[in-house]
Amino acid sequence: MSTPRTRIVMKFGGTSVADLDRIRAVAERVKHAYDQGHQVAVVVSAMAGVTNRMVGYCESLDPLFDPREYDAVVASGEQVTSGLTAIALQKLGVPARSWLGWQIPLRTDEAHGKARIEGVNGAALLASMASGEVPVIAGFQGIGPDGRIATLGRGGSDTSAVAVAAAINADRCDIYTDVDGIYTTDPRIVKKARKLERVSFEEMLELASVGAKVLQTRSVGLAMKEKVRVRVLSSFEPPCDDAGSLVVDEDEIMEKQVVTGIAYSRDEAKISIRRIPDRPGIAAAIFTPLARNGVNVDMIVQSTGADGMTNLTFTVGKADEARALEVLEGCRADISYGELARDSDVVKISVVGMGMRSHAGIASTMFQTLADRGINVQVISTSEIKISVLIGAEYTELAVRTLHTAFGLDAQ
Amino acid sequence: MSTPRTRIVMKFGGTSVADLDRIRAVAERVKHAYDQGHQVAVVVSAMAGVTNRMVGYCESLDPLFDPREYDAVVASGEQVTSGLTAIALQKLGVPARSWLGWQIPLRTDEAHGKARIEGVNGAALLASMASGEVPVIAGFQGIGPDGRIATLGRGGSDTSAVAVAAAINADRCDIYTDVDGIYTTDPRIVKKARKLERVSFEEMLELASVGAKVLQTRSVGLAMKEKVRVRVLSSFEPPCDDAGSLVVDEDEIMEKQVVTGIAYSRDEAKISIRRIPDRPGIAAAIFTPLARNGVNVDMIVQSTGADGMTNLTFTVGKADEARALEVLEGCRADISYGELARDSDVVKISVVGMGMRSHAGIASTMFQTLADRGINVQVISTSEIKISVLIGAEYTELAVRTLHTAFGLDAQ
Repeated sequence: MSTPRTRIVMKFGGTSVADLDRIRAVAERVKHAYDQGHQVAVVVSAMAGVTNRMVGYCESLDPLFDPREYDAVVASGEQVTSGLTAIALQKLGVPARSWLGWQIPLRTDEAHGKARIEGVNGAALLASMASGEVPVIAGFQGIGPDGRIATLGRGGSDTSAVAVAAAINADRCDIYTDVDGIYTTDPRIVKKARKLERVSFEEMLELASVGAKVLQTRSVGLAMKEKVRVRVLSSFEPPCDDAGSLVVDEDEIMEKQVVTGIAYSRDEAKISIRRIPDRPGIAAAIFTPLARNGVNVDMIVQSTGADGMTNLTFTVGKADEARALEVLEGCRADISYGELARDSDVVKISVVGMGMRSHAGIASTMFQTLADRGINVQVISTSEIKISVLIGAEYTELAVRTLHTAFGLDAQ
Repeated sequence: MSTPRTRIVMKFGGTSVADLDRIRAVAERVKHAYDQGHQVAVVVSAMAGVTNRMVGYCESLDPLFDPREYDAVVASGEQVTSGLTAIALQKLGVPARSWLGWQIPLRTDEAHGKARIEGVNGAALLASMASGEVPVIAGFQGIGPDGRIATLGRGGSDTSAVAVAAAINADRCDIYTDVDGIYTTDPRIVKKARKLERVSFEEMLELASVGAKVLQTRSVGLAMKEKVRVRVLSSFEPPCDDAGSLVVDEDEIMEKQVVTGIAYSRDEAKISIRRIPDRPGIAAAIFTPLARNGVNVDMIVQSTGADGMTNLTFTVGKADEARALEVLEGCRADISYGELARDSDVVKISVVGMGMRSHAGIASTMFQTLADRGINVQVISTSEIKISVLIGAEYTELAVRTLHTAFGLDAQ
């Protein structure tokens, strides 16, 4: 029985094209799919380490470098890999050619260094594939309205791949990486973590944004919007039709798990402002200057005491902590709060699952499980398909393992 | 007294942009010229070693690589340097932006890997300079008729610089390298070699083509055709208005030297075909198959004996020797020659000078000088401004030194 013929995008990350041997292995893998009769478009990242070296060059010359020049410099990494991968494919007898962002063109907005994709012209790529060729697309890059190279920000090659898949109406976008799929939680912490065969876009978004860094969040959002089926799989294992995990529309998942996975993020810092006079507009007075200074605020809890004074606790990324404190010290006079406290020795644990929508009791199970282990919950936040808690960092492994068991996720 | 304001191209080779410190030094040098009020366009090579690494990657994947993919890969080196140099200039307060071949555009023919320039659109570069900006152009690259990156072949950045200088009607094209000018001969062999203040395009062509590898031959030919004044100077010495050597039109040289310089080339292999039946078309029967196989033939001498048999001796580049012999063995039946001999232990010594045109006796002085030292001349070839001889390689230094003295070139 032959595999049905499909049009697929195969995207290979930096570790998958880290050296010439790995590039040869990628070519073999693409040939395997090509020989099965699939139409294949390839998207490649820069060889592992190259982008960091280029970024280092730019920062060393000028920490406030012109992002348009930065883009010209760092985009060279994917350019090299796309040419080399095309050569490796040709060597195996597979017709192939490299495509740079400006050649496709893949058009972006003007936000150099972190550009957003505005459109991908699929015509040339479709013609290339129709002629039996494999286009090898340099990921991470496009052309801005100024006619200059624009890059999509770190991890942007995943987004390139999804955008290309949407433009050529691909049946699937395979993201090859150094892990073999998406797990119920981090297998380094929980030995009994299970690989998920299918996970919904929404769940993936929550899992990715809270620290399960297999797929870039932006690429998942785009895949959801464009309804591109994404498969995450390892480039270090032999080709196999059922490998990896599929990220798909909710409708494609028959048996919805109540809880799909447990994620954690160590990149949190907690800031508490105590004894704030409780008056209208006080939250805006605090969060507007933070936003203006580029500080992203995540979890927020507010509590008002009997004395009419309010306490506000929230979390920011660890990299933003110093800036946030500086901003808040600066507007102490305006807000006239009593005390400013910080704690970066915290971790955010999240329980994620589509089934939460229709199941009550997930939150209480979560809190009870943590309480039984003597773990104090400092902050809570919830979304439709996620409950997150902030706890002391020393409890990370214990909390993840206990919740994994409590929600029935352990492998048999 | 201020320097008159001019429009100049400053081109920096691989050793001049070898690392971030060298790129910073280049930026300082460009700023020096910019601050004098000159309009400056910069052309840069790849950082030393980068192009070789990229070529190595391609060859390792497939010795018969697709030259279009090779071009996409190797052109990345100049792309990186142009972006980094623009950042370094901006850091010094000099407005600058990088320009890639396809952005200018610098249009080439379709001969990927060794493309020829068909035209440079100077409009955008002129507008950039008129606005007070320094364009930093990635050398060595353009865009082919297929819309893909095309490179100009090794050393092509010199040619880029001259073509850009012609397109923007520059007053001068300064080629910065790791030597401080053009010498009467190789200073490593002759301590008394003198730096030439001025040398004509024609002389430079002859000097370059016979081994004084300061400027790429193609770039000199283009400069001559487009009447671009070229200055060769060192990027390792402090800026100085009179630095280096000027390569200019003959008319700009008042006092013409009879002999300008002595060049040598070790890249020669001598092939002799003996006892060839002397009939019409025999030279074509020999040289046509060589040309078809890409073998460039340089010096040729033919001598016919009393027996009606002809001997033919010629030189080829050392890299072509094996292929030349193979081709000649292959057509032995057609030509029915008696013997095929080779000798790669030879060197070509050339005496070059515009004044030869009007001076008799240069050849005889050359031959007598060599004969006095017991050096046997194996092959002779002449052009209007050059006399070349092939001699045993062991006599290289002796011949160059003796001729340098005999033609009055020694520094005082």
